[in-house]
Amino acid sequence: MIALREPSLGPVFGIKGGAAGGGYSQVVPMEDINLHFTGDMHAITSANNLLAAAIDNHIHQGNNLRIDSRRIIFKRVIDMNDRALRNIIVGLGGKLNGFLREDGFMITVASEIMAILCLADSLSDLKERMGRILIAYDLDGNPVYAKQLDIQGAMALLMKDAIKPNLVQTLENTPAIIHGGPFANIAHGCNSIIATKMALKLGDIVVTEAGFGADLGAEKFLNIKCRYGNLDPNCVVIVATVRALKNHGGVGKENLNIPNVDALSKGISNLEKQIENIKKFNVPVVVAINKFVTDSLEEIEFIKNYCNKLGVKAALSEVWEKGGDGGIELGEVVCDILENEESNFKPIYDVESSIESKILTIAKEIYGAKGIVITPNAKKQIQELEKFGLDKLPICMAKTQYSLSDNPSLIGRPENFDITVKEVRVSNGAGFIVVLNGDVMTMPGLPKVPAANKMDILDNGEIIGLF
Amino acid sequence: MIALREPSLGPVFGIKGGAAGGGYSQVVPMEDINLHFTGDMHAITSANNLLAAAIDNHIHQGNNLRIDSRRIIFKRVIDMNDRALRNIIVGLGGKLNGFLREDGFMITVASEIMAILCLADSLSDLKERMGRILIAYDLDGNPVYAKQLDIQGAMALLMKDAIKPNLVQTLENTPAIIHGGPFANIAHGCNSIIATKMALKLGDIVVTEAGFGADLGAEKFLNIKCRYGNLDPNCVVIVATVRALKNHGGVGKENLNIPNVDALSKGISNLEKQIENIKKFNVPVVVAINKFVTDSLEEIEFIKNYCNKLGVKAALSEVWEKGGDGGIELGEVVCDILENEESNFKPIYDVESSIESKILTIAKEIYGAKGIVITPNAKKQIQELEKFGLDKLPICMAKTQYSLSDNPSLIGRPENFDITVKEVRVSNGAGFIVVLNGDVMTMPGLPKVPAANKMDILDNGEIIGLF
Amino acid sequence: MIALREPSLGPVFGIKGGAAGGGYSQVVPMEDINLHFTGDMHAITSANNLLAAAIDNHIHQGNNLRIDSRRIIFKRVIDMNDRALRNIIVGLGGKLNGFLREDGFMITVASEIMAILCLADSLSDLKERMGRILIAYDLDGNPVYAKQLDIQGAMALLMKDAIKPNLVQTLENTPAIIHGGPFANIAHGCNSIIATKMALKLGDIVVTEAGFGADLGAEKFLNIKCRYGNLDPNCVVIVATVRALKNHGGVGKENLNIPNVDALSKGISNLEKQIENIKKFNVPVVVAINKFVTDSLEEIEFIKNYCNKLGVKAALSEVWEKGGDGGIELGEVVCDILENEESNFKPIYDVESSIESKILTIAKEIYGAKGIVITPNAKKQIQELEKFGLDKLPICMAKTQYSLSDNPSLIGRPENFDITVKEVRVSNGAGFIVVLNGDVMTMPGLPKVPAANKMDILDNGEIIGLF
Amino acid sequence: MIALREPSLGPVFGIKGGAAGGGYSQVVPMEDINLHFTGDMHAITSANNLLAAAIDNHIHQGNNLRIDSRRIIFKRVIDMNDRALRNIIVGLGGKLNGFLREDGFMITVASEIMAILCLADSLSDLKERMGRILIAYDLDGNPVYAKQLDIQGAMALLMKDAIKPNLVQTLENTPAIIHGGPFANIAHGCNSIIATKMALKLGDIVVTEAGFGADLGAEKFLNIKCRYGNLDPNCVVIVATVRALKNHGGVGKENLNIPNVDALSKGISNLEKQIENIKKFNVPVVVAINKFVTDSLEEIEFIKNYCNKLGVKAALSEVWEKGGDGGIELGEVVCDILENEESNFKPIYDVESSIESKILTIAKEIYGAKGIVITPNAKKQIQELEKFGLDKLPICMAKTQYSLSDNPSLIGRPENFDITVKEVRVSNGAGFIVVLNGDVMTMPGLPKVPAANKMDILDNGEIIGLF
Repeated sequence: MIALREPSLGPVFGIKGGAAGGGYSQVVPMEDINLHFTGDMHAITSANNLLAAAIDNHIHQGNNLRIDSRRIIFKRVIDMNDRALRNIIVGLGGKLNGFLREDGFMITVASEIMAILCLADSLSDLKERMGRILIAYDLDGNPVYAKQLDIQGAMALLMKDAIKPNLVQTLENTPAIIHGGPFANIAHGCNSIIATKMALKLGDIVVTEAGFGADLGAEKFLNIKCRYGNLDPNCVVIVATVRALKNHGGVGKENLNIPNVDALSKGISNLEKQIENIKKFNVPVVVAINKFVTDSLEEIEFIKNYCNKLGVKAALSEVWEKGGDGGIELGEVVCDILENEESNFKPIYDVESSIESKILTIAKEIYGAKGIVITPNAKKQIQELEKFGLDKLPICMAKTQYSLSDNPSLIGRPENFDITVKEVRVSNGAGFIVVLNGDVMTMPGLPKVPAANKMDILDNGEIIGLF
Repeated sequence: MIALREPSLGPVFGIKGGAAGGGYSQVVPMEDINLHFTGDMHAITSANNLLAAAIDNHIHQGNNLRIDSRRIIFKRVIDMNDRALRNIIVGLGGKLNGFLREDGFMITVASEIMAILCLADSLSDLKERMGRILIAYDLDGNPVYAKQLDIQGAMALLMKDAIKPNLVQTLENTPAIIHGGPFANIAHGCNSIIATKMALKLGDIVVTEAGFGADLGAEKFLNIKCRYGNLDPNCVVIVATVRALKNHGGVGKENLNIPNVDALSKGISNLEKQIENIKKFNVPVVVAINKFVTDSLEEIEFIKNYCNKLGVKAALSEVWEKGGDGGIELGEVVCDILENEESNFKPIYDVESSIESKILTIAKEIYGAKGIVITPNAKKQIQELEKFGLDKLPICMAKTQYSLSDNPSLIGRPENFDITVKEVRVSNGAGFIVVLNGDVMTMPGLPKVPAANKMDILDNGEIIGLF
Repeated sequence: MIALREPSLGPVFGIKGGAAGGGYSQVVPMEDINLHFTGDMHAITSANNLLAAAIDNHIHQGNNLRIDSRRIIFKRVIDMNDRALRNIIVGLGGKLNGFLREDGFMITVASEIMAILCLADSLSDLKERMGRILIAYDLDGNPVYAKQLDIQGAMALLMKDAIKPNLVQTLENTPAIIHGGPFANIAHGCNSIIATKMALKLGDIVVTEAGFGADLGAEKFLNIKCRYGNLDPNCVVIVATVRALKNHGGVGKENLNIPNVDALSKGISNLEKQIENIKKFNVPVVVAINKFVTDSLEEIEFIKNYCNKLGVKAALSEVWEKGGDGGIELGEVVCDILENEESNFKPIYDVESSIESKILTIAKEIYGAKGIVITPNAKKQIQELEKFGLDKLPICMAKTQYSLSDNPSLIGRPENFDITVKEVRVSNGAGFIVVLNGDVMTMPGLPKVPAANKMDILDNGEIIGLF
Repeated sequence: MIALREPSLGPVFGIKGGAAGGGYSQVVPMEDINLHFTGDMHAITSANNLLAAAIDNHIHQGNNLRIDSRRIIFKRVIDMNDRALRNIIVGLGGKLNGFLREDGFMITVASEIMAILCLADSLSDLKERMGRILIAYDLDGNPVYAKQLDIQGAMALLMKDAIKPNLVQTLENTPAIIHGGPFANIAHGCNSIIATKMALKLGDIVVTEAGFGADLGAEKFLNIKCRYGNLDPNCVVIVATVRALKNHGGVGKENLNIPNVDALSKGISNLEKQIENIKKFNVPVVVAINKFVTDSLEEIEFIKNYCNKLGVKAALSEVWEKGGDGGIELGEVVCDILENEESNFKPIYDVESSIESKILTIAKEIYGAKGIVITPNAKKQIQELEKFGLDKLPICMAKTQYSLSDNPSLIGRPENFDITVKEVRVSNGAGFIVVLNGDVMTMPGLPKVPAANKMDILDNGEIIGLF
């Protein structure tokens, strides 16, 4: 069984196009998965915006909770790449339209409701978590939660079908459960716990995935999702590409097609660190080399040998080119581990420790940092969360995916660096503390020529330009 | 067969609650119809907002079309009662986020896409109409259409399932096709032509409806929908209530429960005018008295007698109380007409005549006005539409539903009044010219205690507070 | 002695250029009068904006008065033609910068402080009046006055020198007191009472003026300024031009240079009405024909004869062309009246009567209207003013200056028209109720090529482009 | 002769109150100096806002220069503490009011016009400099200057009187020329060159001053003002206080009244560095100990001895308490230096060197930094200035005044620190490059109880609450 994230509608019309896989590694029906699918995104959008409307309505109707209109955290969402909505002012037009305030739209997948959907274990848990969302501070500086607006019941009602996982299949008819798809920076980037658990009930082996590199994706999967879902992974597959490792060895984008073992031998230190990291969670690890047509045999061999020296198995994956046949080598390696190796999974930090200590553990153990620097602003935010008892939660790092550090230009396996904590927020409904090391874009824009311009549906129903 | 409008999600959480009927006159499954249903509203929202995002993106990316950011007509929509979004400013935050401009959200059903969906006869017609939407004026004052952004193909793709009518049933298992539900003021307030035509293919008799009083609903149904759909109605049923006619006779809301034949005898002049109006279209007419528990027998009899004197049949409808049995009298009257009377339907104005002449015809013939007054602003807008050849379209009046005139306080059958034309816009994709006689609210707000506050879904799936 | 209004700096840079007179009818030093002069405008700007800053500061600091940020009436001002500031949003940028709200700048002369300066009779009266300014309504709908912010003392301090009249001279060395210059639509359009009274102390005869036509200027001078200043005018000089009267007779701007007694004979009905109006105040009246080079002798004679028939003296004024010598005829006529005719000046309405009755009196007696139509919005505003006891004040009409009616296209002496009251506000500090019959522009814009572009000051101090 | 900065009106109403000195060390007439004075600030405000209005007008009228409305650098100003105006949106209300954009007001003294006034040597130089102001970038990223709007002539006209220095006197009748007062962070913080030069013509010895500590004030006075004015200072007096030096030794504000030689002996390293700094400019230096009533004799002696050991003379100044008599000791020391010591003043960097090199010189030589860190954003700005040839100008550092470093908590004489360059802008009219090391507030706000609340002017003209 496969358990995957579902794509968002908005970006389909931007640069990225669809997100149902590629080559022979695809889920179908691609068109529906990429468009409205079963309406999960729309339900999240509706639930999110019902809460947002309730906040402004509360202020307009007398503001009993004394919400500070300058400190409303909860934002509206829309499933569209729309940069004009990043920063807006709402409430213009006089007394009948409420009070003006600065607001903004995020893309739907960045909604805390999405993160909640993926971490809840039932409809009632979903409802309770939605009620716990920190939506604003009041004029005295105290937190205001969604449930104070009596709105979580209606929100749950809107989510009654969205909470159900969606079953599709691969091109070769392997059942795939596609459900939920939160951001991999301000959220944890994994499909829903409900989907993963359903897959575990239905199949012998469940393959799932997490967004970005292993320092972000695996770390969050293991420390957040597995913790909340009581999941016990038996094996971690790190997906590596020759191209990415050459890039970590100093090769620019334009030259990644040229075989270059020398650069690879430098960049592979990044993979080394990722392997070490997984071992710290006490889970067996395998490296999958995701093959591109431009990879040379010598390069692939180099990676295999390198892994072997580290005592880790590496297998070639050619699923894009050959479908299931291209994954046999990898499958056998994984099955071998499942049968013969033991997993003693354990998160690497205790949620009961302080926010600073949890960040420090991730920074040192996973990123290889020397330490952390907390800006005065972030320090104040940490103190506030502690004051309100919102600090005993797992950490969700929002860091660049281009480096193990928080500086995109430090490639390979950087050393002797600090991680700077610029901002600390709580996603109290989702149940994690978001730690930002830089600016995070939560609303993409359309490019000069959007993919949408080439899309069409003909009179005979044929769809063009969507892939 | 029944062909009806589908409800919008947003207002469900406001004052109004659901819109799937009441008593024994309901369509089911009510919960789904009132919530996301088959996703039609979400598809319209997405298609609308894709076009909106494309407009701002075009300006941001160099603005080849020289769109005047102060004269963008096309607005964003959301399916939520959210007054804070009525008037907003978008594009804040600097160079990367585009240019600032004043904008606003309407509720989804007010989208021109909704009106288009309800007037298109195929997916390709839908696509063409969406391409024709007048979205803005350029810096030289010339119109800019959606197709100039190459976006109608992607919009049609988003509408590929929404264009398909939805089949549900009444509590007594009569098949009901529910599809589309445009505003009855800035749009024409009828379900889709496709749904009505499908119903006509599937059943012997098709019953459909139109929003607001007959001076608005029937006028638009006959002049706009029937014209575009080549529909030939055989009979018109005017729905009257004792309460509304007493109200037209001067009784305030708080006293409508008290029998008052005297007031009824004054207010019935309104019904008289509505009957006269339908006759001008050359379609047989019947009056249905929609019974309320507070109506007295004497009052009902009064209406029946009055209609008889006018040579028009009137029948009691007790469907709310008794289901299908309560509609037998009315059904028989209608069937009798269908079998024995001839219809020679013809719209009351020629689309090729001038905007002013078309408005004047509606004002005089339907409202009983003395004439029309066109404000200088509206005059300028009419001249602009004529200049750009956008004037040969049917008229869609946006007038108060409380009076035959444009003054809500003129009850009964007012005389000697003028209709003031305050604003004239074109919905060029939908294919009509909207004529506004007053302010029209296209985005409702939530009340002090929204219906949402009482809604919930229990662990066992039971839904509370939605009806 | 002459008592005149002082010009505003902002418009000097726009279309209008300076405002120190023309030809041989000028006050000097023109450059200084047109630029910063003695700083009166700057003092008004400062006092106005101190109050505005205090309002937003009060809200930011806890808003003890519960000011409704959507109902702040008092606006900021700037002495510049700056259309971008007409409608703005203030308070962006987060918690430290206060709360967002819609605001706008008016040009300084539109400030209520300016109207106050011109109606106050001492510094302590000025201070009290500034304290009485209605600045906003609170969240319960009650009025909030400036003095509730304890700021009128500091405002008076800023006005300590501005309250002193400014003495300049004409080209022929006649002393001229130039002081204050309020708008002639939302304010009363006359120089300060203090200046007029000072002139009365210093000279035998004081000549003063009022803005716009006599239906606006004289009406306000007599009903507002004379009432507050206990002034008792001995003679009114109506200034007429051949051009304006031909315009009232139907001649377009482009043909005003062509002699046309026929048109003049039609348009002169306007002058007839103005003369009748002044007589209603029981003050002797004279007509001054302000000569233009294009006026024909025949035209001038026509006016003189017409006036004589009405029993009113008319004299030619050629001051622009000939300086003082050109005013001898007029001066003699006026002196004759001062010596031989009696004035029994009395305002035409009682301030203690209702707002509606006062408006009706002006509309009927001065404009010659049939009656008044009050929009629902204005009716509500009148009721509010009555509720708060703010209604026993003189009326300040804001009407078009192009017609005796409120419709600019009704020239000559229109009859059988209604005056529509669209908005009613109180300038409670100034002490009058502003009645708006249309939109009033309180912030001009710069033209495509501003006068400023041609202005310069050379190294030798010579000033260019200012006149 | 004394040459001083003139105070701004706005802050007078905030926390600070007036700025005409204190005790027996004051200039008079205090009330006028603190209020409108001779109108210099108003002239600057007008000239600044004329340029601002011309920018928006240019865009509105067709935007021939293709100004990018998102990249307008030049801001409006107002002489008022008004936080609501810090960040605003202008241009709302539709086509007639121009295009929307984000804007903001600064307080008048932060205007580049003020800095220009203080660095210009004549009216024609003032005009040229105003024409050189970088107001915006166009849509292609090229700079747009004020002169491209043909507005510098009108601006100069508005400044025709403001450019003239203002002569007042001390309480003891010493003539004082008070003229100009630019910000000491984003500008150079000294009175006008014209005033200083006029004083040099009129008196034997001219005493002038510069804002903030010597690392900011003296550095800018010497590197910017003296460079542009060809001034050759003969002696620098560093003003030290026992309190400030104890603060630099670690004593908190609340304990500064308690004698503490120990802390003084630590904090005096700050003074040591300031003395070293002045010597780098080759100008003789004296320390003035500005006496407070809480200073102990032992503390004063400690400073004197410390300076003596460094070979620098230190003298007590008791002018606040005793007037001129309290300055005799200091005066004699200074006169002695003027007669006996030679000055070989030279700025410490060459304007022709690169921006980075100039910043580095200041950071190392004056602040004692290890080096500078330039953020990516600032790097881009530097490259832009270099690209447009705007880099060969003196540097104006905007740094905290609480530390020699850019970290306010590093007291005394910090070592081993870097200076972070966060933003680099050009004031091309003033003729310097502003380098920001942190956020700079250019618009103060009013406090909870503004000083204005206590101000008043009585009927007899007596002024209350202004000091």
